[in-house]
Amino acid sequence: MRIGILGGGQLARMLALAGHPLGLKFIVVDKNPNCCASAVARILPGDINDSAVIDALLEQVDVVTYENENIPLSAAQAITDRIPLLPGCQALQCAQDRWQEKQLFAALKIPTTQFFSVNNRDELLNAAEKLGFPFVLKTQQGGYDGKGQTVIKSKQQLDGFELAPCQYGYLAENFIHFSREVSCIVVRASSGEQRFYDLCENTHKSGILVETHVRSTDPMAGKAQHYVSKIADKLNYIGVLAVEFFEQDGELFANEMAPRVHNTGHWTIEGAVTSQFENHLRAIADLPLGKTTTIIDTAMFNIIGAWPAQRDLLAIDNLHLHDYQKIPRAGRKLGHVTLMPSSEAACASVRAQLNNRRFA
Amino acid sequence: MRIGILGGGQLARMLALAGHPLGLKFIVVDKNPNCCASAVARILPGDINDSAVIDALLEQVDVVTYENENIPLSAAQAITDRIPLLPGCQALQCAQDRWQEKQLFAALKIPTTQFFSVNNRDELLNAAEKLGFPFVLKTQQGGYDGKGQTVIKSKQQLDGFELAPCQYGYLAENFIHFSREVSCIVVRASSGEQRFYDLCENTHKSGILVETHVRSTDPMAGKAQHYVSKIADKLNYIGVLAVEFFEQDGELFANEMAPRVHNTGHWTIEGAVTSQFENHLRAIADLPLGKTTTIIDTAMFNIIGAWPAQRDLLAIDNLHLHDYQKIPRAGRKLGHVTLMPSSEAACASVRAQLNNRRFA
Repeated sequence: MRIGILGGGQLARMLALAGHPLGLKFIVVDKNPNCCASAVARILPGDINDSAVIDALLEQVDVVTYENENIPLSAAQAITDRIPLLPGCQALQCAQDRWQEKQLFAALKIPTTQFFSVNNRDELLNAAEKLGFPFVLKTQQGGYDGKGQTVIKSKQQLDGFELAPCQYGYLAENFIHFSREVSCIVVRASSGEQRFYDLCENTHKSGILVETHVRSTDPMAGKAQHYVSKIADKLNYIGVLAVEFFEQDGELFANEMAPRVHNTGHWTIEGAVTSQFENHLRAIADLPLGKTTTIIDTAMFNIIGAWPAQRDLLAIDNLHLHDYQKIPRAGRKLGHVTLMPSSEAACASVRAQLNNRRFA
Repeated sequence: MRIGILGGGQLARMLALAGHPLGLKFIVVDKNPNCCASAVARILPGDINDSAVIDALLEQVDVVTYENENIPLSAAQAITDRIPLLPGCQALQCAQDRWQEKQLFAALKIPTTQFFSVNNRDELLNAAEKLGFPFVLKTQQGGYDGKGQTVIKSKQQLDGFELAPCQYGYLAENFIHFSREVSCIVVRASSGEQRFYDLCENTHKSGILVETHVRSTDPMAGKAQHYVSKIADKLNYIGVLAVEFFEQDGELFANEMAPRVHNTGHWTIEGAVTSQFENHLRAIADLPLGKTTTIIDTAMFNIIGAWPAQRDLLAIDNLHLHDYQKIPRAGRKLGHVTLMPSSEAACASVRAQLNNRRFA
């Protein structure tokens, strides 16, 4: 079976690495012919808004998926009219827009922050009055790794704050003093069968994920799975779906969802019987799903901005290195390492390596 | 680091799949531009006996390895004169020739069958007298998967037997009534450090490996490792080395060695902390070796000649599929599946699928 992937970053790269053993073939659309995925997949260089590029892709593949939900709905619909685009347009549309996403969560009675759509100063002031300080202002579309988010801490800050023009408006929501962030990843087949990975607990720095630790006996797992299950069923979802939750006072608040393989699921390459990448492919290729059981407790660390000496990392026992072959740049995810099993001592060794980096 | 691989079959394919996460780049020399490895590595189409091809390869890589020990020594030496070829020429030369291989084992006091070099009828009759019936006659060079081997069972068969002309002569040896065959795989670094994988037990059918089961608490492991360690040190070996042994009456008899990743080590992709493929690359790239510990008992089954329905295989829990994307042909290894963990019930399910195949 031939799989088309929109976007050739690290997620496409890891999808292809997981899919070759299954005998799948990959064609990746990316503007950059030397993108991350180019080492392991054939690249169709071009823009996904270019209908000639999409035409060329669709002649060569049986199903299309994507590694980034910020793809134009017009392009997604043009594909869907001809061959399966999975996960489908409904999931894509919903995940692209924080307002629609939150509306979906609310409709399914999944707790969220209190949220308001903000398109002008009046709506901003109104939201501030309802939410109190601090509150968070996010662009309704676009933005990732904390980009496009502002925390407004006081009336004084609000008074001096100017709402930049934004095509899709903003979303204002509570600033939750959460005790932790967890994510719940499910894979759902066309039959409706769902299989969950164990919950994992995430740590961010400056809005970017830095660590994920799988929690194979997490007391919140049942609740998270119940919520995610409702989302996946509602969207008639096919593939891997990740939902991030904040935990506060024993309740989970759905923060956002990603209709794709997710950074907080990278630990599954070594730590689960079947990785999120393989299971996403099994689902969209309509093959039986693989087991999602955790083999042993695992931790994942992102390599952001600069690498420590890879030789030093590889000297740490039970460490698995994933180099995306990207040019280093501040704030850029260059790779990740996984510890399986993840002892506290080994985690400390990884953190020490990361703290000793020299940034250009 | 850029790795050159001589030969683009499934071993090169799995080396590249293991090496991309380490950020390694691969160029593979193979006559067939659409060889197995072509999905995951750049192919330099051509013959390794063509010096222009080798010149082109050496301009683009830092180290060269191979997936098949039957490469001409002249080509190997031409590479070694310019950049590292690993494992080195001494290991290659020894593994290419059953006579030299057995001489090495004997010199290191590793038990082997009794063996004789046979180049003419007189030597054949002399060997038969010394060995008794049945005995095994093998071509001294070439031959794999049981090819190039004859069992001579009786004086009558010997009388009617005609020794085909053979450039490198033959080796006659005892027919061992062994209780089982095990293989022992080591990875050795340039520092001399050695790490062993757990022993695995192999089953062959018509001379071709069909099943491998890892034996993480095998009573013969210490003895096997002692023997293999002597071979690896003697050859100043760098990379993964596999040695097959026959067990008879509590002793191990070294049968043959392979200076490369080996079919009986495919289980390590899922079953060991670091796979044989990754560790071979770590060794030849002079990176720290990874742990060889078994995660959990694992079994591997070769898919030979024809596939069962892959969908049915994938429905078996804990099964991992490896499709080499080869055109089916009688006796050809098309892929393998791994069970991790390997319950008896799951093994039975795999065997049932394999027994239900329809061959073209």
